[in-house]
Amino acid sequence: MSFSYLSHLHCPKCHKTYPSDKIQQLCECGSPLLANYDLQSLKRKWKPSDLAGRPTSLWRYHELLPVSSPEHIVTLGEGMTPLLPMSRVGSDMGIERLWMKDEGIIPTGSFKARGAAVGVSKAKELGVRELAMPTNGNAGAAWSLYAARAGIRASIVMPVGAPLITRSECAISGANLNLVNGLISDAGKIVGQAVKEHQLFDASTLKEPYRIEGKKTMGLEIAEQMGWELPDVILYPTGGGVGLIGIYKALRELVELGWIQDKLPRLVAVQAEGCAPIVKAWEEGKQESQFWPDSSTAAFGINVPKALGDFLVLEAVYKTNGCAVSITDTELLREQRNVARLEGAFVCPEGAATFSAARKLRENGWIKDGETVVALNTGSGIKYPETVQVEAPILDPQDRMIRL
Amino acid sequence: MSFSYLSHLHCPKCHKTYPSDKIQQLCECGSPLLANYDLQSLKRKWKPSDLAGRPTSLWRYHELLPVSSPEHIVTLGEGMTPLLPMSRVGSDMGIERLWMKDEGIIPTGSFKARGAAVGVSKAKELGVRELAMPTNGNAGAAWSLYAARAGIRASIVMPVGAPLITRSECAISGANLNLVNGLISDAGKIVGQAVKEHQLFDASTLKEPYRIEGKKTMGLEIAEQMGWELPDVILYPTGGGVGLIGIYKALRELVELGWIQDKLPRLVAVQAEGCAPIVKAWEEGKQESQFWPDSSTAAFGINVPKALGDFLVLEAVYKTNGCAVSITDTELLREQRNVARLEGAFVCPEGAATFSAARKLRENGWIKDGETVVALNTGSGIKYPETVQVEAPILDPQDRMIRL
Repeated sequence: MSFSYLSHLHCPKCHKTYPSDKIQQLCECGSPLLANYDLQSLKRKWKPSDLAGRPTSLWRYHELLPVSSPEHIVTLGEGMTPLLPMSRVGSDMGIERLWMKDEGIIPTGSFKARGAAVGVSKAKELGVRELAMPTNGNAGAAWSLYAARAGIRASIVMPVGAPLITRSECAISGANLNLVNGLISDAGKIVGQAVKEHQLFDASTLKEPYRIEGKKTMGLEIAEQMGWELPDVILYPTGGGVGLIGIYKALRELVELGWIQDKLPRLVAVQAEGCAPIVKAWEEGKQESQFWPDSSTAAFGINVPKALGDFLVLEAVYKTNGCAVSITDTELLREQRNVARLEGAFVCPEGAATFSAARKLRENGWIKDGETVVALNTGSGIKYPETVQVEAPILDPQDRMIRL
Repeated sequence: MSFSYLSHLHCPKCHKTYPSDKIQQLCECGSPLLANYDLQSLKRKWKPSDLAGRPTSLWRYHELLPVSSPEHIVTLGEGMTPLLPMSRVGSDMGIERLWMKDEGIIPTGSFKARGAAVGVSKAKELGVRELAMPTNGNAGAAWSLYAARAGIRASIVMPVGAPLITRSECAISGANLNLVNGLISDAGKIVGQAVKEHQLFDASTLKEPYRIEGKKTMGLEIAEQMGWELPDVILYPTGGGVGLIGIYKALRELVELGWIQDKLPRLVAVQAEGCAPIVKAWEEGKQESQFWPDSSTAAFGINVPKALGDFLVLEAVYKTNGCAVSITDTELLREQRNVARLEGAFVCPEGAATFSAARKLRENGWIKDGETVVALNTGSGIKYPETVQVEAPILDPQDRMIRL
């Protein structure tokens, strides 16, 4: 048994292939590259029961991850996050079997830890010494911290409007942090120029091929945690879209391994009304999205006006008979509160949007009676204090408690 | 096999016993009550290998937890947090085998989730409808959210100086939140009066017997994760002290079950110089601490001027040949930064204090060459943004990245 069955990289647009034993960024044609594994060999040697007793982190799936040698793994214990029944919110919205995959319970408090753990580990294995990336906050925080653990230098550029706590995470890790008066697309241009000028490793979304391999493990875990019986629907908050692309890739690999049947869950891309390029493209039946001008939403992580992997997101939605749906900030903030009051889970605004979308899709009948639904919460609400209004009386020590 | 082997409650001071099938608070003598299990029966039926394949949450140890019936479990997936090697920080302080038990990777972002999960589950099983408690922030946040999931009403009183994010967690869960111009001891008096006037369940630290049972699971997990070979030293940040008491209780129960040998790790109570009543008592060889006037520290969770369970903390320290040590805020904030830069872990100030203490105890020779040391990080640094200074240039979209 090899530790990893990674075989090579390929371009999903022009189909050119690349070796995976040296640093790769985009394809010559400008498309992201994706990782291929020798699934036919792996299929003969690996079965679900082999997972028993393995570490309860995403590294339990190392055969399907790109790191060739265990000593290059950079880990903070990420993965195998809880899959929780949400029966009270579910019955509130008429979905009997509603589950939440809770990516708040992970190092750095967001699902970005998965991409960073695998991306940084592979970068370390390939000898990267310094990386740079634009971010809406959480990815930069995660890559800063994992890079620190790996001894890799990181330069991060994020919008001034990104969640404040993510600045602290970058700063305390010793990363070189720049803020920009603009959006993640502006940060991306600044990083692009610096990458050229200083020959840095570009860790931007989908500009290196391994972040998605980390995100993929959300799909592997959902499948394993459900006993290899997939749900009918998975809802995912979609900015750059790597999570959704990753889940789709994971499920197809599991089909090839014969671990699951080939009827995949319908994948739903959830966006905010203030930034919904994927939804617009889906509604128009297009294969790619257009830049969304003047984008804005309280769910900062999905404020991505044009994603490099938009065509892969749309492919995943079309191929699984999924859909794309947008939610107002008012709706998602109301749902965030509702989930906390009924389930005790303080989800992030992006995660709240998936519950809002489930409610909407149940109301309009797209989600049917008795279907099993998984909503992805991509991060912890504690990273977004500004989304909660606190009204509390202030007492002096001799006062009585006010009990409303 | 029963689901739980809880047999009764006993008073560690006057030795009176109480039945565990109804609501209990303190002993008549004013001491906390502790839970007893039928370990002799359990010993004959339960062995470490039975844990294989169980859920990766603290409920894998249900035989040693007080909830009688699985349907009363209120869970957000808490427990089995990572135990991580900290080799770079370890070699920086001359401790070859340094580990961190990372309680930041848990619902609500702090170890308080363990006490809340078990305490709320047992309260639900016993029919509690409304609870009240004082808090330095994180416990109130955890109990608010778990109570919401259980459908139990919660009233929380916290100092105005407690971490702001914990206010948001209480508020969004729908708890009745009061702030007080004072310390947790002032909040405790206000809660005490409300408990009497309104016949509420008092969920204050150690005033109900089951929070400690949740905390205990940190000890069970460390033992299991180390393959039932214990470390030489465990360092714990000590405010109310329930975590340390719980770990000690867990280890003694494992000795009785024959799962570990009876040479226990030396337990270290770590406090802040601005609030060090346990350290003072230990230095003077006393069995109880005295109220620490005008207490103050950046590590807000351990700003507890007089703990109800002080005598149990001191007993655990004395019986294991441990010690108690205090750290300045300057030292612990420096260590917080050091841990992030070298290991990529953004620990909370209380957790940073344990690393600081390890450094100090290695320097003075109390921790010896080659010893295995576990530092408990009790929560995620993302709950304490104010402990990090961020200095970052602000660019306009057409600017170049500043690379320091």
